[in-house]
Amino acid sequence: MRVGFYQSDVTPGDRQGNLDRMATALSGASFDLVVLTELFATGYGFADRTAVVAQAEAVPDGPTTGALIDIARAKHAFIVGSLVEADGERCYNTAVIAGPHGFVGRHRKIHLPDIERRYFDPGEPDTPMFDLDGVRVGLVICFESWFPEYCRRLALAGADILCHPANFGGTMSPDVIRTRAIENLVFTITANRVGQEMVGGALEEFRGGSRIVDPEGGILHEAGRTEALGIVDIDPTRARRKASPVCRDFLAEIRRASSPQL
Amino acid sequence: MRVGFYQSDVTPGDRQGNLDRMATALSGASFDLVVLTELFATGYGFADRTAVVAQAEAVPDGPTTGALIDIARAKHAFIVGSLVEADGERCYNTAVIAGPHGFVGRHRKIHLPDIERRYFDPGEPDTPMFDLDGVRVGLVICFESWFPEYCRRLALAGADILCHPANFGGTMSPDVIRTRAIENLVFTITANRVGQEMVGGALEEFRGGSRIVDPEGGILHEAGRTEALGIVDIDPTRARRKASPVCRDFLAEIRRASSPQL
Repeated sequence: MRVGFYQSDVTPGDRQGNLDRMATALSGASFDLVVLTELFATGYGFADRTAVVAQAEAVPDGPTTGALIDIARAKHAFIVGSLVEADGERCYNTAVIAGPHGFVGRHRKIHLPDIERRYFDPGEPDTPMFDLDGVRVGLVICFESWFPEYCRRLALAGADILCHPANFGGTMSPDVIRTRAIENLVFTITANRVGQEMVGGALEEFRGGSRIVDPEGGILHEAGRTEALGIVDIDPTRARRKASPVCRDFLAEIRRASSPQL
Repeated sequence: MRVGFYQSDVTPGDRQGNLDRMATALSGASFDLVVLTELFATGYGFADRTAVVAQAEAVPDGPTTGALIDIARAKHAFIVGSLVEADGERCYNTAVIAGPHGFVGRHRKIHLPDIERRYFDPGEPDTPMFDLDGVRVGLVICFESWFPEYCRRLALAGADILCHPANFGGTMSPDVIRTRAIENLVFTITANRVGQEMVGGALEEFRGGSRIVDPEGGILHEAGRTEALGIVDIDPTRARRKASPVCRDFLAEIRRASSPQL
């Protein structure tokens, strides 16, 4: 299975331009599953809730999900995107999957950093698991990766791959997401943004460093600080062995660790 | 508060020699809390259960805990050690704390790698929290750090510092334990062994790299691959702020993440 990320910059406020650039970048690539960065079509810096609402769109009928579906159909592949979702009065930071047969599903970010609380609603608790032609995928949006419980639930629900659209500037998230791969014996694909944007009145520098990590913590591919498409071949069933060199029945130990009586 | 680690090699089978060397290394140092490596007095490679039983001792009345208490009294400080504990027919991989007034408490390793399952019994589930003159300490023994649930329970029980005696050779554990500091906003003190020993028929090379990490993931001190005493000054109450730059009320978010309905 060919999986990867597209690590990109964003032109804030130019959704169509960002969608077109993404489409061009992916047009020549060969992949079965690709992950885009968090809010790749809008940018991350919003003045207030009104600015967020102005960018919000329906899922799956809005333009961003529509563009992803068009590419997924053309490439006979799956794409994980991220967008501002409107649902009635609510606005969510939402990740979606598009596939060869159209819309696959969504996950609304549960754990929001303070800046996002100003204008997003947190998603209702969920553990969505998506079957992509037999490969099981969970969606983890940026800061959600800092909470081991959510990733653990996805792993126990059978995730082979955690897809992780991100917008981080700090140095902690790469270690954190690698730990999620190690402790759950799953693949992780992080697509982190590059470039700069004003966020909450301060200039944020996004650090890229998108990574594909295997279930033993091996870093299969890592990007630098510029736009990059990173794609590798993996055998996703490796995530089902749940055997580490030091603990063959790791799944039993995970179950033991997460049992309510502990 | 002056806290740190003593990263040492071991002469297998020479408990008194190892205890003497540790006492000498600590005699000139100034500290309030120091963490020793996992099984620092016996080594980690055992031929079988019989060999383990031969090294096992009572807690707190055995020679290793006794030696730790002697030093703790002389230094007016706390020491976290690690030993093979005998309790009736059972043998545990146990961490202990000794203090100025004697024995403080113990924790028996819950999560055992396969090699240890051959000859150790797993500890009963617990979340022991030790109050060291107002500073709250949890004990995490090597591979236990790979399970976020145990460290989370310690954090929710109020831990300021996770003390982590370790014997690892791989490259994953440093990232994993740093993640435990980040996701729980606690200090971690890892004392990892150096040197080589035959373990389960293969030569294991322990990598040292002992680390003190702060609640924001900052690496306050890191050792190389040789014997080293590493001590830094910290303000343990920083672990009680539970405020990260991106999420001021991180504790509320942790509680949300770990609530049963999620």
